[in-house]
Amino acid sequence: MNYYPNIEKIKFEGTESKNPFAFRHYNPEEVVLGKTMKEHLRFAVCYWHTMTQDGSDPFGNAVNKRPWFGKTAMDTARNRVEAFFELLEKLGAEYFCFHDVDIAPEGNSLEEFFQNIDEITDLIKQKMDETGIKLLWNTANMFSNPRFVSGAASTNQAEVFAIAAAQVKKGLDVSKKLGGANYVFWGGREGYETLLNTDMKFEQDNIARLFKMAVNYSEKIGHKPQFLIEPKPMEPSKHQYDFDAATTLQFIQKYGLENDFKLNLEANHATLAGHTFEHELTVARINGALGSIDANQGDVLLGWDTDEFPTNIYDVTLTMREILENGGIAPGGINFDAKVRRSAFDVEDLFLAHIAGMDTFARGLKNAAKLKQDGFLEELIAERYASFQTGIGASILADQEDLESLSTFALEHEDAEVKSSHIEYVKNVLNDYMK
Amino acid sequence: MNYYPNIEKIKFEGTESKNPFAFRHYNPEEVVLGKTMKEHLRFAVCYWHTMTQDGSDPFGNAVNKRPWFGKTAMDTARNRVEAFFELLEKLGAEYFCFHDVDIAPEGNSLEEFFQNIDEITDLIKQKMDETGIKLLWNTANMFSNPRFVSGAASTNQAEVFAIAAAQVKKGLDVSKKLGGANYVFWGGREGYETLLNTDMKFEQDNIARLFKMAVNYSEKIGHKPQFLIEPKPMEPSKHQYDFDAATTLQFIQKYGLENDFKLNLEANHATLAGHTFEHELTVARINGALGSIDANQGDVLLGWDTDEFPTNIYDVTLTMREILENGGIAPGGINFDAKVRRSAFDVEDLFLAHIAGMDTFARGLKNAAKLKQDGFLEELIAERYASFQTGIGASILADQEDLESLSTFALEHEDAEVKSSHIEYVKNVLNDYMK
Amino acid sequence: MNYYPNIEKIKFEGTESKNPFAFRHYNPEEVVLGKTMKEHLRFAVCYWHTMTQDGSDPFGNAVNKRPWFGKTAMDTARNRVEAFFELLEKLGAEYFCFHDVDIAPEGNSLEEFFQNIDEITDLIKQKMDETGIKLLWNTANMFSNPRFVSGAASTNQAEVFAIAAAQVKKGLDVSKKLGGANYVFWGGREGYETLLNTDMKFEQDNIARLFKMAVNYSEKIGHKPQFLIEPKPMEPSKHQYDFDAATTLQFIQKYGLENDFKLNLEANHATLAGHTFEHELTVARINGALGSIDANQGDVLLGWDTDEFPTNIYDVTLTMREILENGGIAPGGINFDAKVRRSAFDVEDLFLAHIAGMDTFARGLKNAAKLKQDGFLEELIAERYASFQTGIGASILADQEDLESLSTFALEHEDAEVKSSHIEYVKNVLNDYMK
Amino acid sequence: MNYYPNIEKIKFEGTESKNPFAFRHYNPEEVVLGKTMKEHLRFAVCYWHTMTQDGSDPFGNAVNKRPWFGKTAMDTARNRVEAFFELLEKLGAEYFCFHDVDIAPEGNSLEEFFQNIDEITDLIKQKMDETGIKLLWNTANMFSNPRFVSGAASTNQAEVFAIAAAQVKKGLDVSKKLGGANYVFWGGREGYETLLNTDMKFEQDNIARLFKMAVNYSEKIGHKPQFLIEPKPMEPSKHQYDFDAATTLQFIQKYGLENDFKLNLEANHATLAGHTFEHELTVARINGALGSIDANQGDVLLGWDTDEFPTNIYDVTLTMREILENGGIAPGGINFDAKVRRSAFDVEDLFLAHIAGMDTFARGLKNAAKLKQDGFLEELIAERYASFQTGIGASILADQEDLESLSTFALEHEDAEVKSSHIEYVKNVLNDYMK
Repeated sequence: MNYYPNIEKIKFEGTESKNPFAFRHYNPEEVVLGKTMKEHLRFAVCYWHTMTQDGSDPFGNAVNKRPWFGKTAMDTARNRVEAFFELLEKLGAEYFCFHDVDIAPEGNSLEEFFQNIDEITDLIKQKMDETGIKLLWNTANMFSNPRFVSGAASTNQAEVFAIAAAQVKKGLDVSKKLGGANYVFWGGREGYETLLNTDMKFEQDNIARLFKMAVNYSEKIGHKPQFLIEPKPMEPSKHQYDFDAATTLQFIQKYGLENDFKLNLEANHATLAGHTFEHELTVARINGALGSIDANQGDVLLGWDTDEFPTNIYDVTLTMREILENGGIAPGGINFDAKVRRSAFDVEDLFLAHIAGMDTFARGLKNAAKLKQDGFLEELIAERYASFQTGIGASILADQEDLESLSTFALEHEDAEVKSSHIEYVKNVLNDYMK
Repeated sequence: MNYYPNIEKIKFEGTESKNPFAFRHYNPEEVVLGKTMKEHLRFAVCYWHTMTQDGSDPFGNAVNKRPWFGKTAMDTARNRVEAFFELLEKLGAEYFCFHDVDIAPEGNSLEEFFQNIDEITDLIKQKMDETGIKLLWNTANMFSNPRFVSGAASTNQAEVFAIAAAQVKKGLDVSKKLGGANYVFWGGREGYETLLNTDMKFEQDNIARLFKMAVNYSEKIGHKPQFLIEPKPMEPSKHQYDFDAATTLQFIQKYGLENDFKLNLEANHATLAGHTFEHELTVARINGALGSIDANQGDVLLGWDTDEFPTNIYDVTLTMREILENGGIAPGGINFDAKVRRSAFDVEDLFLAHIAGMDTFARGLKNAAKLKQDGFLEELIAERYASFQTGIGASILADQEDLESLSTFALEHEDAEVKSSHIEYVKNVLNDYMK
Repeated sequence: MNYYPNIEKIKFEGTESKNPFAFRHYNPEEVVLGKTMKEHLRFAVCYWHTMTQDGSDPFGNAVNKRPWFGKTAMDTARNRVEAFFELLEKLGAEYFCFHDVDIAPEGNSLEEFFQNIDEITDLIKQKMDETGIKLLWNTANMFSNPRFVSGAASTNQAEVFAIAAAQVKKGLDVSKKLGGANYVFWGGREGYETLLNTDMKFEQDNIARLFKMAVNYSEKIGHKPQFLIEPKPMEPSKHQYDFDAATTLQFIQKYGLENDFKLNLEANHATLAGHTFEHELTVARINGALGSIDANQGDVLLGWDTDEFPTNIYDVTLTMREILENGGIAPGGINFDAKVRRSAFDVEDLFLAHIAGMDTFARGLKNAAKLKQDGFLEELIAERYASFQTGIGASILADQEDLESLSTFALEHEDAEVKSSHIEYVKNVLNDYMK
Repeated sequence: MNYYPNIEKIKFEGTESKNPFAFRHYNPEEVVLGKTMKEHLRFAVCYWHTMTQDGSDPFGNAVNKRPWFGKTAMDTARNRVEAFFELLEKLGAEYFCFHDVDIAPEGNSLEEFFQNIDEITDLIKQKMDETGIKLLWNTANMFSNPRFVSGAASTNQAEVFAIAAAQVKKGLDVSKKLGGANYVFWGGREGYETLLNTDMKFEQDNIARLFKMAVNYSEKIGHKPQFLIEPKPMEPSKHQYDFDAATTLQFIQKYGLENDFKLNLEANHATLAGHTFEHELTVARINGALGSIDANQGDVLLGWDTDEFPTNIYDVTLTMREILENGGIAPGGINFDAKVRRSAFDVEDLFLAHIAGMDTFARGLKNAAKLKQDGFLEELIAERYASFQTGIGASILADQEDLESLSTFALEHEDAEVKSSHIEYVKNVLNDYMK
């Protein structure tokens, strides 16, 4: 372990500490609502932003300073494994996530790519065994290679579909090898650029076809991770089919995939789709489909995925409220699909940024737990819907009414009074939970 | 007929005409692809924007000059029927749409409201019989009355649910009386202001409950219109459950309503949800759920529903392309859910605006028909997906492949070349279809 | 004083209190950075949202329950004065703001309108004398009346310009009578619906013309309030000329109005224009034009002015940071241009909502003061720009360099290293200031 | 000439032609309103999108197939000059634009970079002499290099400011060498990431400082191109200082740069700022600052700069209306700051895309000319503001009125009637101009 020689294992030191490389709020073993913080939060670090992102953007060149570059692409890939696990251990993060192309270079052929994956996953497996760190999920990148310019499963080119299938097969093989808990599909190019040249039904049918093949194959090899689809409305495609949670659930229902697929929800994707993150979490939860989350935050005044580390206490508190309501996030986790801002290019910033994210989630967990313990919102809601507990309300819920009986009732009881929400008061009290 | 004494029946006169009160493009009896324009377009005029809208906005008072105000609310309601049918006849529009509150004042009780509806629908029926004009759809306004402040079917107050049910029953009775072809649900308040006090599952269950009651009642009275749900993402509610076509289809599927419910799609609602209108139309079409459309246009630089009359030739051509692809829109229609701009407050503007909308749809129909006849886009699409017609592509579509077979294929055929879309060329040629 | 019989004067009781009608954070006499909270915050209540708003929205009827309606419009207007000052006193707010039409009915003529204003302002003056409450600013509503459909100063109808001028004259007369500290121009209709029929230069020239007349008249009558222009990008007009702070400053500079005009900035208007509120505040401050603020918050996922009471601690802390940086906001103030949500329709909600806003601003003030005392951000900034304190940096600032000398320097010193912003760390520490 | 062996010089063949490599509407020598099309349109091709863009995006690798890659970066740079001028000649475009880094590799030092520029501009000059093609504008890329991570002129690092100055000096030297008509500043990093660590006034002062140095240097070397600032609201910076036309004019006025600086306006930047392009053009025009345009179009449902080739006839017609109103765009021009969609990766697509853009502008020019000749909108506007031609209106414009005289007038003439805009009719007629 020597990529970050000046950084010790990060410890909880509280807000009085002047040490930037310490947790101010995240105390892994602290018990909240009967479980330790780390059990609740199941933090994962992602390979792509942390290991392979170079700090370039559409108007600027690479800026990140990273100590792991080697003479060849495979040297760099090997170094990254070392550096990644050192970072995971120092952060105390117990899970990780990756795309195939993050860990291994594609080389000059699919065959070479798969060999590279084999070699690197051997190394990763060894590190996992040494450290006890686990694979939250892996996935295949089916959007960066030029062949995926018009989609992978939704491509118009049959050979490209076959290559996508090969990558998914390899992904599931890797998942089995590493004991992955989940397997994710994010369809960055599964959408369209323009409807002028697109057969939407054809493309969606093919996506479902690939998903079913994946389920079948996972059953065949005797390793069935929880499958997750990650919604996002746009970018890179002008319009992606998995626009948001509800749209993705429509797809899942239509093609009968309910038993095998849940959702991997990302905060920044929610706002790009016009929703709050808690909206997306709720939609998934009430449909039994809250699988895992990609923790980050967007800039609502910008129209693209900024993937910032989550530091907004309000947002994270409401996120944790949903996760507690869901009975936890396992076998999913909280994956930091977040990148350091371009101006934070030092390798140490990777630590500072994850600390910020982990601290904020620790706050969110404690705030949400306190809210739940006090029952502030639960009581509010119970009282608000109380009229459905008795009388005509209960009768409606028991499916004992129809339009005629309700019409008769209404003509006799139309002066029913609605009550004020006192919502500004609720928000003022809620502020006292934001610690 | 005397509300617009200076306006004759609107006729087709072509673009050379200097008469503002003439169609420049819409020629009702002109045959396009084997049907007359009016059969294709099934134009409907809406009561709310045309008869009851007063030109006020959140920052301004009523400005519209309308000649039909009487001494009492019921006098005005009676006059409106006269004025409405005069307008329909002069425009040559064969369908109309309304909410219950558009046609009759609510009075001081539900009973009085229903009596008012009875009286006014007697008048409307008489006019329909005289003129042959038909009811495209009616609906109940369950969002304006203060009692619906937190929803109708999704209310937290059981008595309010009962009143909503009573209005729906009345709406279906009216639909039977007037031979309505469709019945619409738009849930302006079926959503939430904040998740802090909302039980989303409870509310959606209740919406489905009301919908099933409506189906049951319509079967009981022996009049079953096509039921339509109209998606909209926000406004007035901060977040409405029927966000867009896909979200609404998810709801329909979840609650098993596929056989009775289709979608009524609105152009401006599409853009507010982050979609083009043709996207929403396509989603509905490929799911067998394209029911009817609300024709208007929004201002994409403004964040609310502007409900402008449709005048953009591109948008309307692509709309008509989808409708032709769907095999037509019947038993739905093209309802101008559009209002004159606040600065166009003269009663004559109601004619000028509908003429603009009808002319634009006539152009769109002719453009889309020409596109279809030439097969320009059909050929483009056929060629684009050609690789799925033979070989591995055909085998994939025939469900004869799995991840293993495709992986083997891919390892041997990975040099498959994707082809340029030449999309800028396509757009340049397409421009020549925009007449 | 009897409009809110159950409500006592609101007192500071701290977060332990269970009394909803108490301040949890705002302690008027508490000293922060050498001034009392109330001196820092100069809270104003606005007449329009608090007294005249009825809870209607574009899709819904009036819902607010208010006890001050009388038999005639003037009775109601008189009652409102009583109710308003009772509310101001109970809240402990020392300032207020109004439009002419908020306080007095327009009647059937301009003459009658002005007489009504005279009568009501007599009443207001009497209340001011009794209570010591002061007028922060008044303004003329030149956007609601139908005559302003295409603008007031920017109208295409000369007579309408004259009426606008008459209202401004009356507004300044009232300002003198009541000792108003500021006078505001918000141009809700000073913009355009479409450029197809608009002469933008003509219209902007006329707006400047009216502003100069206002300055001249105020000098003539010997009462010169601080003039303020309030930027807003859109709504009700499709496009308003005073889009944001910078645009309004461009107008002020172009027409030479710098000496008499500053800006009244509103949080929700900032986000509608694509800016954070702190951006707008900074732009105004560094141009010596930060006059006063309209305190509220918007919903960044909605595209219109929601005018919510401010409860976001982050936003308000950064707002107060700018106000402290500006050396305070006097003679301006913090005006709650905010309305209760439609679901909070009880008259008590007016108190609860203002308490929420005032508490949040109290938090913001204390947080910003702590930040300033600690010098956390000041030190960060000083260090960040340190290279301009010496050497070539100092020489640049002293205007002693030109392109040639700098080019020579650069060719010799191009390896200058930029430093990481460590921005995620900064945000994590900042979170500890959010109390 | 041999980079596009299959492509002949593009000729006008009309819409009946089946040749994709022909103009359907652009006929360079056709006379419109007394000038040839090419004199009106002054088309420029940009180096960055056409020569250096590789088709990568934030989620995808390079995809473009380009025949000009050589063994070394300088070989490629030399080939590009050949290929670029071949393309310009075949398209019949008479102008071009570039950033310093587009034409020459940066090498390992500023000195090497400048030498590379010298060598390549020698080649360019030779080509210009041979072909008669002219430099519309050049600029320095001060946003891609890592050193500009926090700005160039607005940097916090003095040495970086010096390097920016050196690049500008070199840019002006090149402008002189090549006879550039304009010189552009686009400040992609001249803005901020967060106000937490930014001194906005300091940064803007320094930007103005650099601009003045540029003016001084251009005067010293006896070559003074028209200086242009290009507004853009965001991307890559979270917030750029030159947000839009009005904001940039505020800056120009504040720092007294009116005599030397005009605006280079881009369509896609306008919509990102919440404006139509015609709005931005009008703001510039009425302030005497319409310098040149970057012709492209955005996708208003996406929140980033898509830089599509302009194909929307409405938008381009309104653009050309403003340019005609401005008396033409010279010495500026119409620069296609547009890139082929990622799916259009063939080198031939560069031709097809420019043809689409040029054809659309040809249509726009003809439509705008017809509109002007018919005087349709001019008459509408003249009539609309007619009340200011006589009586009180004329007196207002002559500055002979004040608040008192107008108030007296208003009290006597308040029944002035505003007239309907008949705006839907206007739009319907306007559609007949869209050819």
